[in-house]
Amino acid sequence: MESQFSSALLEGAVTEISRLPGIGRKTALRLALHLLRRDEREAVALGQAIIDLRKGIRYCSVCHNISETGRCAICSSPSRDHGMVCVVENVRDVMSLEATGQFSGLYHVLGGLISPIDGIGPDMLEIGSLVERVSSGAVREVILALSATMEGDTTSFYISRRLNQFDGLVLTRLARGMSVGNEIEYTDELTLGRSLVERVPYEQA
Amino acid sequence: MESQFSSALLEGAVTEISRLPGIGRKTALRLALHLLRRDEREAVALGQAIIDLRKGIRYCSVCHNISETGRCAICSSPSRDHGMVCVVENVRDVMSLEATGQFSGLYHVLGGLISPIDGIGPDMLEIGSLVERVSSGAVREVILALSATMEGDTTSFYISRRLNQFDGLVLTRLARGMSVGNEIEYTDELTLGRSLVERVPYEQA
Repeated sequence: MESQFSSALLEGAVTEISRLPGIGRKTALRLALHLLRRDEREAVALGQAIIDLRKGIRYCSVCHNISETGRCAICSSPSRDHGMVCVVENVRDVMSLEATGQFSGLYHVLGGLISPIDGIGPDMLEIGSLVERVSSGAVREVILALSATMEGDTTSFYISRRLNQFDGLVLTRLARGMSVGNEIEYTDELTLGRSLVERVPYEQA
Repeated sequence: MESQFSSALLEGAVTEISRLPGIGRKTALRLALHLLRRDEREAVALGQAIIDLRKGIRYCSVCHNISETGRCAICSSPSRDHGMVCVVENVRDVMSLEATGQFSGLYHVLGGLISPIDGIGPDMLEIGSLVERVSSGAVREVILALSATMEGDTTSFYISRRLNQFDGLVLTRLARGMSVGNEIEYTDELTLGRSLVERVPYEQA
């Protein structure tokens, strides 16, 4: 399709849009032509928002979550429990956990997971700064909230080894079991087995 | 999810990206976070390409295809048959037809199809300019290459009525029938019926 664009501007836009994950050249062309049909204002707003996002974004110096100030709103909040730190892979996971409304502590964003296959070692993640945070003595519990995958488990294991040195620090991880609303019949056997092993006392409502 | 963004820049980018067709807020967030992980150069190139596209794009004064000059490369080409004009809905259809390598005439981009439901009447399309082109006398054949839908058929019918006045003008439309490579068993009955009605003489290869 490359040579069939009658415009270098269109060609350029399609090429840039198709660099986005999950967007091929056909979809990129559809999006570009959509932008051409809309108000110029709308297309310029989109382009400018992308540039502003990338140029203006800052990260919290404590937890590495996205922030527009040196210290994010969560880390600055006096109403949150500063003794609990929830370790997550990325910024999106912070949003997911915040959306549960079940956590009132702070976060620590690693910026990825250890993955030898992808060439990501512990030094490329914010693990050193986590150890430093804990060594300050203010942290009572670290919750490992990483994906239930090989990479997540490897990273949790590595972090647990690094945090071993702190006596009295409580180290926990997310529970694994059946999804809420799921039927036993449709729960995979690994998850079902896990939910059996991690069973908790039944409490009458 | 709206209030959970810790950054107005991120919020802004997600809002703008999610205005694109087929992209919801979740996908927009995924794309925005992807851009944050990549080189600043890449994100700025994307944003700028979108702005440049919308601000810089021009349309051919003859056929209304995308062009960066007053008259597009196809309309300016002496090697194309200027006596044949293929009427299409949009710019993408020009690319699709060019990709077949089967057409050496010119195009006429309507900019849409007549659709009373969507409030699109004939006056909002480039039909007047088509009639004008034909009235110049240089056009021998007009091929109606519109979608095989209610809107496409309505538009074809309307155009055929407008072009009735020109004696000697050949008016054709795309053939309808089985897709190449398709099995009879999997061809819908309307299409199969159509391919029977529009059967052509069998030629030995």
